[in-house]
Amino acid sequence: MSSIEARLSELGVVLPAPAAPVANYVPFVVTGNRVFISGQVSITPDGLITGKLGADVDLETGIEAARACGVNLIAQVKAACGGDLERVARVVKLGAFVNATPDFADHPKVINGASDLMVDVFGDKGRHARAAVGAPSLPMNAAVEIDGVFEID
Amino acid sequence: MSSIEARLSELGVVLPAPAAPVANYVPFVVTGNRVFISGQVSITPDGLITGKLGADVDLETGIEAARACGVNLIAQVKAACGGDLERVARVVKLGAFVNATPDFADHPKVINGASDLMVDVFGDKGRHARAAVGAPSLPMNAAVEIDGVFEID
Amino acid sequence: MSSIEARLSELGVVLPAPAAPVANYVPFVVTGNRVFISGQVSITPDGLITGKLGADVDLETGIEAARACGVNLIAQVKAACGGDLERVARVVKLGAFVNATPDFADHPKVINGASDLMVDVFGDKGRHARAAVGAPSLPMNAAVEIDGVFEID
Repeated sequence: MSSIEARLSELGVVLPAPAAPVANYVPFVVTGNRVFISGQVSITPDGLITGKLGADVDLETGIEAARACGVNLIAQVKAACGGDLERVARVVKLGAFVNATPDFADHPKVINGASDLMVDVFGDKGRHARAAVGAPSLPMNAAVEIDGVFEID
Repeated sequence: MSSIEARLSELGVVLPAPAAPVANYVPFVVTGNRVFISGQVSITPDGLITGKLGADVDLETGIEAARACGVNLIAQVKAACGGDLERVARVVKLGAFVNATPDFADHPKVINGASDLMVDVFGDKGRHARAAVGAPSLPMNAAVEIDGVFEID
Repeated sequence: MSSIEARLSELGVVLPAPAAPVANYVPFVVTGNRVFISGQVSITPDGLITGKLGADVDLETGIEAARACGVNLIAQVKAACGGDLERVARVVKLGAFVNATPDFADHPKVINGASDLMVDVFGDKGRHARAAVGAPSLPMNAAVEIDGVFEID
């Protein structure tokens, strides 16, 4: 087992089969040594985490939702690497959208659910640039959506 | 006529003169073999498609608005290629914002208006990564805004 | 003094110490000759400019907030260049989020506060692609957040 796969296992992270394209877009595009990954919503094996931070979703659930997006991003980058996560050279950038009310202000705490996962899994290679902002609504009422840019070898 | 221009013609797509810069930003920047294109709003030869999905804009009009953004992106990438759309190697990423109410959930269906256009025009090279999210408001009350990353030869 | 530093001085722009990482993300990642910079909020030496355009923040203050984000982006790219701003080859893309009400429509005017700064400081190298959209809420109730992609030598 590779060291990244071992770390996933230690963390109890089970990667889903990467979500198939549902339209004329694709889950990721490789250009040069960079991978652009489509926005991943907060879906888990138990279903989609839905709702709005500041209203019907509490902070803890928001963090869990962001972590779910992170797991789905890792599943996609694994597919982009032909199954070998050791080829991930750097998590470059996460673009994070929190389904939130106008008075919500804790977007960074929510998105740490994904950021912490990246560092737990990839170590220093997991330290990334990011933007975290609110959105009034997200696809299928998902609580969080995150897209990503990765560098691979 | 090049094959891409022929396909545009078959689809009845007339590219507008690419919108001129209206400020100290520019419509696109070429860096290496990638083109970063500024957010294009849903403007058509008949004017700007305005309004909010979930309120005063229906799904069909939203799809048309997204397609208009796509047409404007293609006009910009054509300019970036010195007029030769055959130089487009890949549509890499679309970043899509839907002017939407807090309870709207069909952002993917709206943005398919742009995604379908890319594949209709560029074929497999048109298959892209994307993110589709809501925005509470957009410039000039546009219904949709989409930016893009393209790879060119 | 380098020419860029001289221009900053003429403009009366004092770069802050670049904000330290507050979590498992970092202020910037260098990949190849590109720098991806995390979303910078509208913080100034006098504190964070907070509030919502269309409600409690007027246009002039919004422009000032966007300029503050721009100053913070320049502080980060300076750090990415090891302190030498002459290494900035191009401001490639700004991704701008305005904390705004559903009926706000002047996002471009707000974000010109950052766009104008880039051209004032970097000249033609400062002309960038950008997207400007609304967000219902931003971290810590910041009025504006902007992330960036730069090309460096």
